Amino acid sequence: MRRIILDVDTGIDDALAILYALRRPGISLEAVTTTYGNIDIAQATRNSLQILEAAGRTDIPVARGAARALVRPYTKKGSVIHGANGFGGIKLPEQKAEPVARFAPDFIIDLVRAHPGEITLVPVGPLTNIALALMRAPDLAEKLAGIVFMGGTIHHPGTPSMPSPMAEVNIFNDPEAARTVIASGALLTMIGLDVTMTTKLTEEMIARMAKRADAANDLAGRVTMEAARAYLNAYQRQYPGITYCALHDPLAVAVAEDPSLVTLQPMKLDVECVGEITRGQIIPDLRKVAGVVPNTSVAMLVDAPTFEARFEAALGG
Amino acid sequence: MRRIILDVDTGIDDALAILYALRRPGISLEAVTTTYGNIDIAQATRNSLQILEAAGRTDIPVARGAARALVRPYTKKGSVIHGANGFGGIKLPEQKAEPVARFAPDFIIDLVRAHPGEITLVPVGPLTNIALALMRAPDLAEKLAGIVFMGGTIHHPGTPSMPSPMAEVNIFNDPEAARTVIASGALLTMIGLDVTMTTKLTEEMIARMAKRADAANDLAGRVTMEAARAYLNAYQRQYPGITYCALHDPLAVAVAEDPSLVTLQPMKLDVECVGEITRGQIIPDLRKVAGVVPNTSVAMLVDAPTFEARFEAALGG
Repeated sequence: MRRIILDVDTGIDDALAILYALRRPGISLEAVTTTYGNIDIAQATRNSLQILEAAGRTDIPVARGAARALVRPYTKKGSVIHGANGFGGIKLPEQKAEPVARFAPDFIIDLVRAHPGEITLVPVGPLTNIALALMRAPDLAEKLAGIVFMGGTIHHPGTPSMPSPMAEVNIFNDPEAARTVIASGALLTMIGLDVTMTTKLTEEMIARMAKRADAANDLAGRVTMEAARAYLNAYQRQYPGITYCALHDPLAVAVAEDPSLVTLQPMKLDVECVGEITRGQIIPDLRKVAGVVPNTSVAMLVDAPTFEARFEAALGG
Repeated sequence: MRRIILDVDTGIDDALAILYALRRPGISLEAVTTTYGNIDIAQATRNSLQILEAAGRTDIPVARGAARALVRPYTKKGSVIHGANGFGGIKLPEQKAEPVARFAPDFIIDLVRAHPGEITLVPVGPLTNIALALMRAPDLAEKLAGIVFMGGTIHHPGTPSMPSPMAEVNIFNDPEAARTVIASGALLTMIGLDVTMTTKLTEEMIARMAKRADAANDLAGRVTMEAARAYLNAYQRQYPGITYCALHDPLAVAVAEDPSLVTLQPMKLDVECVGEITRGQIIPDLRKVAGVVPNTSVAMLVDAPTFEARFEAALGG
């Protein structure tokens, strides 16, 4: 059983990741912590609570986290991909639960210290909460089972609309936090665009899952599949000719449970924080020279068919 | 017949490139222009004159160029790879010829304007001379047949000892010049580490070529192969376990004559000039979105066996 804390900026694929974590028998979702990114912190927190409400899992604690990056303000309004409400404009049921009365980084510290060696952090937005936790409690690095983060890219082109053409948006949104986490000494696994962009959520998969959610009277599944349709449409506007949307955040959760889904390559990573066209870019040091010591296991290949089938089985009721 | 101007920081593989250009019947070497890089400008100029002297080709004009990068001083002393004299410590015959009385960038401008559409520039060191020529004479961009430069990398690790782990030394030595050249509108071909590091000069090739140079009483061939041995030794110190040295600069000359040696991919390139760990890194914009217009043909694969055979045949007498 893999005990995880999911750190999300919910977001449509974040919602898919939450549902995946809830419905895989091998995963115990210990908490959801929220951050800004796809959408602002208030909306991300609301969306996370509402997904858990729809799934009937208000027992999962939600802790609200950072509203902005370590050194830069958050100025984004809405989202081209995730819509004005971060959920493709789809209305979710009002939540009854409240976030816990603890700042997400502190809540993470509490949980990890209470269960040393047990907890895997799965951040799928900017790494601000994780950096804040590690700065406050450097002992977390060795008390964590690991950190599996969705973000960055090695060879794949970066996120469209970023000023840095080889930067992925989660890292771009808080490069200083990413640098801090990468230098923390924690056991790190990077799930970047090199692998996530090859995982496919298609129209057909959505239709099948929506049908089964309907049949099972599965509210969370139904609204999430509605949002997934909006996500696919937004993808097709952003990447002309594409016939799918990518399962970025769910893949990180899936790898946290089962690393055999990906081929990992140990690399020494760093993050450019001041570059003019490289700010937010992950920089691997691939030189075979003394002093280059890997700090991250980077997913370079993924068994997409196995993962996609597992995803559809988990969410399809 | 390909008419080229070879811009060199001679340098052992620069010397190999000069000899290759002299001995390929399909290439007319119109001039050699010199720059700093592997070694300082005075030594690079001396070495270039002496190679031409040894080859009996003092008819080729040599123009001395920039002594330092556009915005940074040149502070290097000697070279780990090329030795204190830039030629592996091997003594070359004293030159009788003098450089022409014209600054290399101006000499380039004169030649290109005198033969519009005819000249291909092949810079194999920092791009300072080329940037200076293009800044002074922007019309060169369309009067050139093209620029085939050795430098940069897309996926291959950068040059060992650079502070930027994904930077190649020629671009790192003058990122501002590289950026200027890439933005010039000239027809550009990049011959970077992705291809040059797969071209091999081995102990056995050197032995065969040295033997033939001896038999033919070929002074230039003989001293260059002596230097090549030193180059191979230096390579083996820098890259433990490697059994060859790479034919960086000769490959650029070879591609200027025959582009079919490489597989070219059109890319939009830019150069990071201010990054903390990315200064001097070539940044491709590989995103399939509107506004990304390629400016460079980047060599991503090379037919190394064909090139190596051609190299050995040309230099081996």
